[in-house]
Amino acid sequence: MRGVRWRVGGGSDIETVFPTQFRMAEKFTIENPDVTYNKDYIEAVYPYQTTHVYEEDGSIKVKPCSTKFTFRTERKVPKLGVMLVGWGGNNGTTVTAAVLANKLGLSWMTKTGEKVANYYGSLFQASTVCLGTGPAGDVYVPFKDLLPTVNPNDIVFDGWDISSMNLADAMVRAQVLDWQLQEQLKPHMKKFHPRPSVYIPEFIAANQEDRADNLIQGSKKEQVEQIRKDIGDFKAKSGVGKVIVLWTANTERFCDVIPGVNDTAENLMKTIECGREVSPSSMFAVASILEGCAYINGSPQNTFVPGVVDLAIKHKVFIGGDDFKSGQTKIKSVLVDFLVSAGLKTVSIVSYNHLGNNDGKNLSAPEQFRSKEISKSNVVDDMVQSNPILYKPSEKPDHCVVIKYVPYVGDSKRAMDEYTSEIMMGGTNTIVLHNTCEVCQISVLFGYYGGFGARQRTCIENILRACLALPPQNHMFLEHKMQRSFVTTQISTMLF
Amino acid sequence: MRGVRWRVGGGSDIETVFPTQFRMAEKFTIENPDVTYNKDYIEAVYPYQTTHVYEEDGSIKVKPCSTKFTFRTERKVPKLGVMLVGWGGNNGTTVTAAVLANKLGLSWMTKTGEKVANYYGSLFQASTVCLGTGPAGDVYVPFKDLLPTVNPNDIVFDGWDISSMNLADAMVRAQVLDWQLQEQLKPHMKKFHPRPSVYIPEFIAANQEDRADNLIQGSKKEQVEQIRKDIGDFKAKSGVGKVIVLWTANTERFCDVIPGVNDTAENLMKTIECGREVSPSSMFAVASILEGCAYINGSPQNTFVPGVVDLAIKHKVFIGGDDFKSGQTKIKSVLVDFLVSAGLKTVSIVSYNHLGNNDGKNLSAPEQFRSKEISKSNVVDDMVQSNPILYKPSEKPDHCVVIKYVPYVGDSKRAMDEYTSEIMMGGTNTIVLHNTCEVCQISVLFGYYGGFGARQRTCIENILRACLALPPQNHMFLEHKMQRSFVTTQISTMLF
Amino acid sequence: MRGVRWRVGGGSDIETVFPTQFRMAEKFTIENPDVTYNKDYIEAVYPYQTTHVYEEDGSIKVKPCSTKFTFRTERKVPKLGVMLVGWGGNNGTTVTAAVLANKLGLSWMTKTGEKVANYYGSLFQASTVCLGTGPAGDVYVPFKDLLPTVNPNDIVFDGWDISSMNLADAMVRAQVLDWQLQEQLKPHMKKFHPRPSVYIPEFIAANQEDRADNLIQGSKKEQVEQIRKDIGDFKAKSGVGKVIVLWTANTERFCDVIPGVNDTAENLMKTIECGREVSPSSMFAVASILEGCAYINGSPQNTFVPGVVDLAIKHKVFIGGDDFKSGQTKIKSVLVDFLVSAGLKTVSIVSYNHLGNNDGKNLSAPEQFRSKEISKSNVVDDMVQSNPILYKPSEKPDHCVVIKYVPYVGDSKRAMDEYTSEIMMGGTNTIVLHNTCEVCQISVLFGYYGGFGARQRTCIENILRACLALPPQNHMFLEHKMQRSFVTTQISTMLF
Amino acid sequence: MRGVRWRVGGGSDIETVFPTQFRMAEKFTIENPDVTYNKDYIEAVYPYQTTHVYEEDGSIKVKPCSTKFTFRTERKVPKLGVMLVGWGGNNGTTVTAAVLANKLGLSWMTKTGEKVANYYGSLFQASTVCLGTGPAGDVYVPFKDLLPTVNPNDIVFDGWDISSMNLADAMVRAQVLDWQLQEQLKPHMKKFHPRPSVYIPEFIAANQEDRADNLIQGSKKEQVEQIRKDIGDFKAKSGVGKVIVLWTANTERFCDVIPGVNDTAENLMKTIECGREVSPSSMFAVASILEGCAYINGSPQNTFVPGVVDLAIKHKVFIGGDDFKSGQTKIKSVLVDFLVSAGLKTVSIVSYNHLGNNDGKNLSAPEQFRSKEISKSNVVDDMVQSNPILYKPSEKPDHCVVIKYVPYVGDSKRAMDEYTSEIMMGGTNTIVLHNTCEVCQISVLFGYYGGFGARQRTCIENILRACLALPPQNHMFLEHKMQRSFVTTQISTMLF
Repeated sequence: MRGVRWRVGGGSDIETVFPTQFRMAEKFTIENPDVTYNKDYIEAVYPYQTTHVYEEDGSIKVKPCSTKFTFRTERKVPKLGVMLVGWGGNNGTTVTAAVLANKLGLSWMTKTGEKVANYYGSLFQASTVCLGTGPAGDVYVPFKDLLPTVNPNDIVFDGWDISSMNLADAMVRAQVLDWQLQEQLKPHMKKFHPRPSVYIPEFIAANQEDRADNLIQGSKKEQVEQIRKDIGDFKAKSGVGKVIVLWTANTERFCDVIPGVNDTAENLMKTIECGREVSPSSMFAVASILEGCAYINGSPQNTFVPGVVDLAIKHKVFIGGDDFKSGQTKIKSVLVDFLVSAGLKTVSIVSYNHLGNNDGKNLSAPEQFRSKEISKSNVVDDMVQSNPILYKPSEKPDHCVVIKYVPYVGDSKRAMDEYTSEIMMGGTNTIVLHNTCEVCQISVLFGYYGGFGARQRTCIENILRACLALPPQNHMFLEHKMQRSFVTTQISTMLF
Repeated sequence: MRGVRWRVGGGSDIETVFPTQFRMAEKFTIENPDVTYNKDYIEAVYPYQTTHVYEEDGSIKVKPCSTKFTFRTERKVPKLGVMLVGWGGNNGTTVTAAVLANKLGLSWMTKTGEKVANYYGSLFQASTVCLGTGPAGDVYVPFKDLLPTVNPNDIVFDGWDISSMNLADAMVRAQVLDWQLQEQLKPHMKKFHPRPSVYIPEFIAANQEDRADNLIQGSKKEQVEQIRKDIGDFKAKSGVGKVIVLWTANTERFCDVIPGVNDTAENLMKTIECGREVSPSSMFAVASILEGCAYINGSPQNTFVPGVVDLAIKHKVFIGGDDFKSGQTKIKSVLVDFLVSAGLKTVSIVSYNHLGNNDGKNLSAPEQFRSKEISKSNVVDDMVQSNPILYKPSEKPDHCVVIKYVPYVGDSKRAMDEYTSEIMMGGTNTIVLHNTCEVCQISVLFGYYGGFGARQRTCIENILRACLALPPQNHMFLEHKMQRSFVTTQISTMLF
Repeated sequence: MRGVRWRVGGGSDIETVFPTQFRMAEKFTIENPDVTYNKDYIEAVYPYQTTHVYEEDGSIKVKPCSTKFTFRTERKVPKLGVMLVGWGGNNGTTVTAAVLANKLGLSWMTKTGEKVANYYGSLFQASTVCLGTGPAGDVYVPFKDLLPTVNPNDIVFDGWDISSMNLADAMVRAQVLDWQLQEQLKPHMKKFHPRPSVYIPEFIAANQEDRADNLIQGSKKEQVEQIRKDIGDFKAKSGVGKVIVLWTANTERFCDVIPGVNDTAENLMKTIECGREVSPSSMFAVASILEGCAYINGSPQNTFVPGVVDLAIKHKVFIGGDDFKSGQTKIKSVLVDFLVSAGLKTVSIVSYNHLGNNDGKNLSAPEQFRSKEISKSNVVDDMVQSNPILYKPSEKPDHCVVIKYVPYVGDSKRAMDEYTSEIMMGGTNTIVLHNTCEVCQISVLFGYYGGFGARQRTCIENILRACLALPPQNHMFLEHKMQRSFVTTQISTMLF
Repeated sequence: MRGVRWRVGGGSDIETVFPTQFRMAEKFTIENPDVTYNKDYIEAVYPYQTTHVYEEDGSIKVKPCSTKFTFRTERKVPKLGVMLVGWGGNNGTTVTAAVLANKLGLSWMTKTGEKVANYYGSLFQASTVCLGTGPAGDVYVPFKDLLPTVNPNDIVFDGWDISSMNLADAMVRAQVLDWQLQEQLKPHMKKFHPRPSVYIPEFIAANQEDRADNLIQGSKKEQVEQIRKDIGDFKAKSGVGKVIVLWTANTERFCDVIPGVNDTAENLMKTIECGREVSPSSMFAVASILEGCAYINGSPQNTFVPGVVDLAIKHKVFIGGDDFKSGQTKIKSVLVDFLVSAGLKTVSIVSYNHLGNNDGKNLSAPEQFRSKEISKSNVVDDMVQSNPILYKPSEKPDHCVVIKYVPYVGDSKRAMDEYTSEIMMGGTNTIVLHNTCEVCQISVLFGYYGGFGARQRTCIENILRACLALPPQNHMFLEHKMQRSFVTTQISTMLF
């Protein structure tokens, strides 16, 4: 499984292979009649394989199926505009600053030496995938070079915030980036002023009230219309080809799903019209859909009530995303997945978290915490339900999630987890973990660390491969194993 | 991704679905012309897909290929005999005791209640795989039921040890299992006496000398012959259809690969004949191969010098296995894989381990430790090499591995790891982990916790699926995503 | 500071020096005219030194003072009876079982070998104090041998519980002691039946209700009278010379201090008479005081309302004790004391705790948790207030205490703490601590681990020394320093 | 034990009470005939109390004794010069920079706000002591104000280093202080150039060789003479009244004590004369003693061979100090002291440490590590030997100390410790601790965090109190207890 690096011209200088500007996806060609390259598109015909399990005549049948998909990928990426809800928050200011710093190629000094702006932690910008096997071994390419993708440096930002603070001051308030870097960014950041936003006090913690000095006026209907106008205005002025709206604002409390109120697109629109209960995030989602812009959610609340989903389907607009889970929640899912997949019975998961930024302050209110807690608890349920050997139908591990607001730690997220698992014959395994994470939850925009677990990464990688009609990554390595041809004859013996 | 349990006859009693004795693999049928069931075999024709990368006319071409495999699986599993080298050690006694306890259905009291013998932590016996999708959702089956596999309860054990202690006393010495369970096992275990074994002082730590009271006499050649006779004797007396030899003994020091000495099968045989340097584990491997028995290694030393591999190929005998890595090493590979795959730059990995059993005592000698240390260090290298965006060619994380012998902790393995990773824009992530693991390293025999990392599990699962001509697990879930047909049109936009 | 062991008769066999039965306090004699030994008493005249700080004529004066105390210690220790409130709980059953096991000299097997009953973790039974300096260096004696003290093995137990379960069954329910030890104790423990107790639902968590099947009937006044009768009955039947009542039961919610209700002894007695609000623990305290028995509290609630204190003073009965703090709370006080005493500015203390026993279950109710939380938070306040260099008047470290009920961990208490401190020039120190503690909170009876912090130990040691007119332990070691006479002349120079 | 703040004139503004410039020691007066204030001195007559234990007529006698001491403290503190061996190392540059920053009152920005130069972590500058009890409760004063002490801001620095780098560049190389602070300090620091130093390759790690470009030439005798000249030169040029020499350089390997070579002052001087084996640190100590300057050691090697001690006594010069133990070693001693003093049997202490500065690089060589390891191991021995109830004569806890060099972590010291202790009846307590410490080991100069454990602090506090004839801190609080006069009568009963 050695990672062998590709040599373009036989040269040995690796530096020329993966320069940040290099679009390897432009440079390799798929040799496959199922893949067609034309001026505008890469088109791939892909047999997607699934397995169906059904009952027939009292016995269980398992049947592999194949569905033919045609994936069409635009070769020219549009100029992209991103509008952030909660632009002046920690996520909003940091993502804007990070893109600026990368675009400007900034560097700054710290006591351990010079730091250079980078996209470490971004799935697309900083991780690689195995393209296949070359004469000298496996060939890896940057994830972003599998297909034509937007360069984050080219994104144009805009957004809304209930606080009118300009983005330079908001960046200082966020206390996320090194001071020397902030100093360089300030002249650029201070030009950004968030547009007025929607503030409905009952949906976020009371302690957020003193930030709320930049609000859209008028009825709910008028507010939705203003958001739509803002999107149009941004599109017109920035000249971007596509706009995405991204919720990076505070966690709202859960919203009850009520027939007649938010269960259909029609009812939801009526609710907005007459000013009945609708969450700010649902209002932003509605405005985005009506403007034909994809809407991505990054907080754990249920923005996507049935009425919103219904509206999105009707308008054929993409909506998606859930909680930008912190790295710790992902590590939990990685560890529990590993343990349960290995046949250990995880019996107790205790998960303590604290943070000191405004996100933590908002979550210190019980209703907002509840939304987050539910989001963090879910990660374990699927794994437990998939293994009835270890867990009886009604059985679950003890699972306790605590989130506390500890101002001193600021934007540094701390997690202390304890996992107890039963191994064979009364043995136990106890894993205790302390995780300190700074600047890590920034944004699904770059597919950051917080964004994806191990299975989700496989999913994304295989979908991108499919767009090139490449088979999914299967980790089987039969080609290596076959060199020792005597292996297979013994496989059934070994598998006890 | 909800795990929906299969209901055999529409009944709701889950308990009847996965009884431990139930061979689900016998119960479901693959409906696929590529899969043939006959009296003796399941035969599957499988298109194995790989991707080739090559250069042509100065540009890089990527070409998917498909190789047709035919997998033939015996439907009747043989009666299996397992001979353990180091039978009286912690691994040997515990695996023997565990199988006995399961076979006898033993239970015992502890202060927290009754414990029942089980195979928790075994990949095959205690984990499940997703077979496919049924009308009510995903259908899982026990891993062991995918194909006909040996029931561990049916295995017959035998083995060698340099200590003559009977297995009841050796189990007490090992201090692994609960005392109340030991009491019940003693009458059975005391009947087992290890056969004399090979002891070459220079290969294991000097502190093992006082155990060595049960040795095969004679020249190296005579010793190899005695091992062969032992295998034959066991086969004859136990009536098993197949014998596997498994090294569970102490870690040896590395063995130099010397042309003329151990570089070819022929030279190795000559070396044994004239009594030159050969490690005890290589001698056991040679004897196994000559008897046509698969040989599995469970320690980090380089048993498989080229001469041994050559001999195995010539005799078409399966040899394999490396260090039964402790759970901690696997967790390290899971975490580093997660971090680097997510685009984080892991810059420092510090891994402290201590244990107090005889394994630890042997490893406290520098040469034996060296073998183990190398084995533990490797897990990180592949990941680093596969990502030249994060790591320059000569760059590696600081990686420090310490193993200490702390008698008090006994068979409980303790690990304290610290992982530091760089995230975007100067941010860092620090994970500190303390892992306490009891009874977890037992044996690759059951595919235990210690046995497999996340990618290796995927590999094994997909190979077993291939034996039924089932497509590999790809985690793509396009079938769910297609319900919202508007998704795909936006895929390329989202991938920035 | 070498610990040199005392040799009684010049012999070298250390084993004869500190046998568990040996009363060293009987064996050494204080050569001091201020100490008088007579048949019944040791009487010591002790000058207790304090320092007074006052203002005079606008300047601050510091004046050392000395108060003469006469300490009289009975040489013959009485036969002691201890009555536990909550006898059937984890603390009650374990302390009773532990004393029984020590008295009977029980031993039991575990996988790591034979365990023998002991008093490890008891300040008096298992720690030593430095008596002084002998010809060969420092001389240590067991703490218990400084003065005549009761041998815990001689204590007679009795008690009350709202659950009627006999103590053998209650011990099994508690899941604290090794099963093999429980088996030996059962025949003895099953003879103990708790007397009916007081149950006022509003004072403990609702989840305790299903235990309450063993209640004293009648009005509050009648209940107090029944407790008094129980004490008298126990004294008469057991023939003990002294009875102590000890609250080991659940944490109650705080009790409001209300003028006219519980502010004076008289009002409190009236309140009991007319059945107004009074906590069960205050009722037990009142009954004890009226019977002339010392009452010791072991939970964090405010049993000692002013009316109870008033009554105790009037009857000259000792009352005392607060929360049997778990080891973790003590470790916190030890660490924070160390840090702040060393001049570090501890800025954030995050303290997560979970446990799975009935104590945890009761504490999972908010009002009971509140009592505990206050008790756990206090430990930091004193240290902060004593250092205005580091902390401004209104300034405090962030301090967050969480207690969760995680059934799986049972009687094992887990604590995960994070301490962040500022060091010079922007440096920080972060201590992360995971503490697993089993069987450690048993009882102030033996001065257990949970009982005393570092300063409290010094306090107790010095009070016992005072009873022998020995000077307090000052750790100055001038006698060693004086050997190098040139030291002192430079002291003022060094102290910058 | 409430900390009540002192109010100078009845005012409530605490800010005026402990300003950093305020010398409280100048402000209070001891009202005690045993304390005399004159123009130059504070003179205190102090009865130092000890306890003698001896055997007489076959029985053990314990006799309190009192020795009269007269402590004379100069009221005018001298102008102090400090010469650092290893001035250009992490400790040397940081202590110099820290004093400069405090003297200049520097402040600098970080992402979490403005930082101001301070002496947090200094026993004398940042901690307080309880002076006594005032009308409103306990009165605390800054430790430094108990007696006249040097203000660190007034210290003049000089020193030697084997690297010629100026202190500004050396500070950058050390990577300890925030970059913005370094920028401000550079113009001042670059004026400091270390004097050439002594380099004997066999005493420090080979990896230090490339630093060695600034060496005193000539024979050992000539080198010692040059050091003496340097001291004289510094004294003359700086006009300081007193010079202290402080070893902050690398850990040397242990030096064999050889009769005739370094066992007496005379032999040592001969050894230097004829160029036989003597360590650089012993050479610096000799030169300091001959110049009448106190010499303080800050590394674990045995600088103070008998010949050095002999010379110091002859010249009546103070020598002292051992390893500037890192905070972690002190925390270990605090924790083990707490555990064993509480009667727990600590059975296993595993202590892993890593750091990435030049100190760590030097310690990565086995002989230098050995010096450090011994220093770190000792802290546990005394505690074990003082408790023969828990430990049999030959018994010791498993104690394992590891120090590794991990470049990435730089000057941040990481420690991961595991403490296992046995509690009553087979219970165990496991404490796992991860400690991250930055900028904390600077110097015994300020009595930093690394400098003192809990008992040592008591020792220093009580010696300073003695200089004012104040009684030692005894934590007895009898004055509070006596308010409840009924307490004492029961003391003997309670102490079982």
